[in-house]
Amino acid sequence: MSEPLQGACIVGQSGGPTSVINASVYGVIRTALDNPSITRVYGAAHGIRGVLDDVLYDMAQEDPDELELLLNTPSSALGSCRYKLKDSETDDTDYKRILEIFKKYDVRYFFYNGGNDSMDTCNKISKYMQKMGYPCRIMGVPKTIDNDLSGTDHCPGYASAAKYIATSCMEIYHDARVYDTGMICVLEIMGRHAGWLTAAAAIAAYYGQGPDLIYVPEREFDMRQFIADVKKVYDMHNKCIIAVSEGIHDSHGKLIAEYGAADGATDAFGHRQLGGLAATLANILKEATGAKVRGIEFSLLQRCATHCASKTDIEESFASGKAAVENAVNGITDKMVGFERTTDAGGAYQCNMKLMDLADVANTEKKLPMEWINEAGNGIKKEYIDYALPLIQGEPKRPLADGLPRFANLKKVKV
Amino acid sequence: MSEPLQGACIVGQSGGPTSVINASVYGVIRTALDNPSITRVYGAAHGIRGVLDDVLYDMAQEDPDELELLLNTPSSALGSCRYKLKDSETDDTDYKRILEIFKKYDVRYFFYNGGNDSMDTCNKISKYMQKMGYPCRIMGVPKTIDNDLSGTDHCPGYASAAKYIATSCMEIYHDARVYDTGMICVLEIMGRHAGWLTAAAAIAAYYGQGPDLIYVPEREFDMRQFIADVKKVYDMHNKCIIAVSEGIHDSHGKLIAEYGAADGATDAFGHRQLGGLAATLANILKEATGAKVRGIEFSLLQRCATHCASKTDIEESFASGKAAVENAVNGITDKMVGFERTTDAGGAYQCNMKLMDLADVANTEKKLPMEWINEAGNGIKKEYIDYALPLIQGEPKRPLADGLPRFANLKKVKV
Repeated sequence: MSEPLQGACIVGQSGGPTSVINASVYGVIRTALDNPSITRVYGAAHGIRGVLDDVLYDMAQEDPDELELLLNTPSSALGSCRYKLKDSETDDTDYKRILEIFKKYDVRYFFYNGGNDSMDTCNKISKYMQKMGYPCRIMGVPKTIDNDLSGTDHCPGYASAAKYIATSCMEIYHDARVYDTGMICVLEIMGRHAGWLTAAAAIAAYYGQGPDLIYVPEREFDMRQFIADVKKVYDMHNKCIIAVSEGIHDSHGKLIAEYGAADGATDAFGHRQLGGLAATLANILKEATGAKVRGIEFSLLQRCATHCASKTDIEESFASGKAAVENAVNGITDKMVGFERTTDAGGAYQCNMKLMDLADVANTEKKLPMEWINEAGNGIKKEYIDYALPLIQGEPKRPLADGLPRFANLKKVKV
Repeated sequence: MSEPLQGACIVGQSGGPTSVINASVYGVIRTALDNPSITRVYGAAHGIRGVLDDVLYDMAQEDPDELELLLNTPSSALGSCRYKLKDSETDDTDYKRILEIFKKYDVRYFFYNGGNDSMDTCNKISKYMQKMGYPCRIMGVPKTIDNDLSGTDHCPGYASAAKYIATSCMEIYHDARVYDTGMICVLEIMGRHAGWLTAAAAIAAYYGQGPDLIYVPEREFDMRQFIADVKKVYDMHNKCIIAVSEGIHDSHGKLIAEYGAADGATDAFGHRQLGGLAATLANILKEATGAKVRGIEFSLLQRCATHCASKTDIEESFASGKAAVENAVNGITDKMVGFERTTDAGGAYQCNMKLMDLADVANTEKKLPMEWINEAGNGIKKEYIDYALPLIQGEPKRPLADGLPRFANLKKVKV
């Protein structure tokens, strides 16, 4: 354990938001504000962009109660970015600027809350600071609804999205069978390369109230087989609910979502038609079955529906932010906080924090294990349910005002 | 007050479901089971279809705890239908059959839970029974997310849909401004003729966390003005969120949703393209502004998201079912239970049950008052907020199992 560095910290958020990314950042801010080694706590506006542009917020100016509301506020409260740093060997302009800002504010701690691209950013900054002999500690705090960071059992943000998806699938299951007439529903769920989110629909199915068929991008999608699968279920039950990942693709790697946009197909205004995957598959199934078909895209809601978040996810997200600060103060740098699944004496789920090398996480992607997908490639096995169920447990106490969510309202006082 | 009739009752559900239609039907079932004048309580499978087909469930066979879960179970637990009775003058086949079933089971009470079409069904059955001199009492129990039944202050089911819409709008508001880059979001909300549901987006806007522009079908939609409205907001804020009713139409009455489906526009499979309204407007705005545009359709979720229901709505729904039974036993017939808004001594919102003639409700439609829409036709005024806010209050206690909703699981024992 090294001596704590005395100095300021910067915390930033990057990449697509989740329902609980603000719980992680609150874990960082609260712990940093309470730590005597950390002299100032700055929030970077829009991630690393805020550092480059010298737009930092003084988090000590915020009302502590408002800060605590971050536990239940969706989106990235500090603002996010999708900014990729060049290699410092090729172009060190950004790095010089970051060092300049770090020196200007005596920054000795940098916490970055994001997915694998953000871990890459952390890693690059860390290497540069080491090269320049500037002592500082750099820690990654994970987030992604996609659950695709390698080395960690799961990612903060995934469980809340999964809970929203499973809950909504159950509700739609009931709604879709209200009439005794035929009905097919296609549910489009996020996930370009990994099927983790779509797999969450299987939790609803496990309780007999979910999709009949589930397709993830880990397996090639065959349109003829798909239509045959749907017809089989529909002929038997007069209903069929299907969950698909946005990233499903054929054997040539072509996205099925792109099947809908034929060259030259335009609407009445001459605009090129670009329906979503759900609409595309709904049209195809309507033609193939003659049934009433509805396409539903969960869209942004699956990543921002804090009103249906998992308490476990919120607590773990906070804990990961807290662990990042505590470890950094204790001399750790160049690590991302990850989760390790254990069980307590009674066999109940427990989650421990662990530390992982930034370089290992930076540019890899963890997919749904192939052995959790059924042989036919249209369903998810019980192993996944056992994995996912503990993560979605617990109802957070949601602060409300006038029957609506009371989200954090930060002053964002610029330094 | 007449003598109570001794005999059985039938309760049925009809039309599109809501998050709380089962709370109403539970109000009927629970009250009827507890009433000594009512000898049997039958649930009709799929509304009036269940009566015609002689498929009735014996509600006394259900576990009382499961029945109580109906308070928090979406969709129509007994099954619904969209069956329109012919005029008995033209064709009395159905009516004879209904009378036959009523006699077979000694049915003296009929409770029908639905929208204006269902009130029409009630009314027709009632007239026929009177003509045939068969004593029975027929009561309508309202439901509709559309809030378009006339004569009642509001309709059971509306408030929960409104709460889901307002909550989701707030969450999307935060998500949509996570980056400092431009973003336009088009939210498509249900409502073919009435803008009540879309108006609920204004509640989020009232709290500074909702759409910038709102368009309802009560006003003609002008595409050029719409594009100008969006550009104005977008140029100023680099963001624009728009809420539209599915039923918005131009001055010729043509649905804007149909603008997207040009004659002959087909996808790669030769299927006719049929995107939703949100997708159509998103394509048009993308072209017009060059901005990143996302279309989001709330789809079925807005009518089945029991996980975001209003406690007030659940309680009022239950109360309307209860009032229908109590009034019928006390001699009332041919009425629908409606809501009257009053205030208590302290000025707080209160809702009283009132009785309305079925004939008056049957075939009318209540639209959003024109004076609640702003002059430009792109926003909703404070009068609506004052109307809507009391309705969405209160968080129901949601029964959960394994972190997921625990919905009623009825045995549905056929008689």
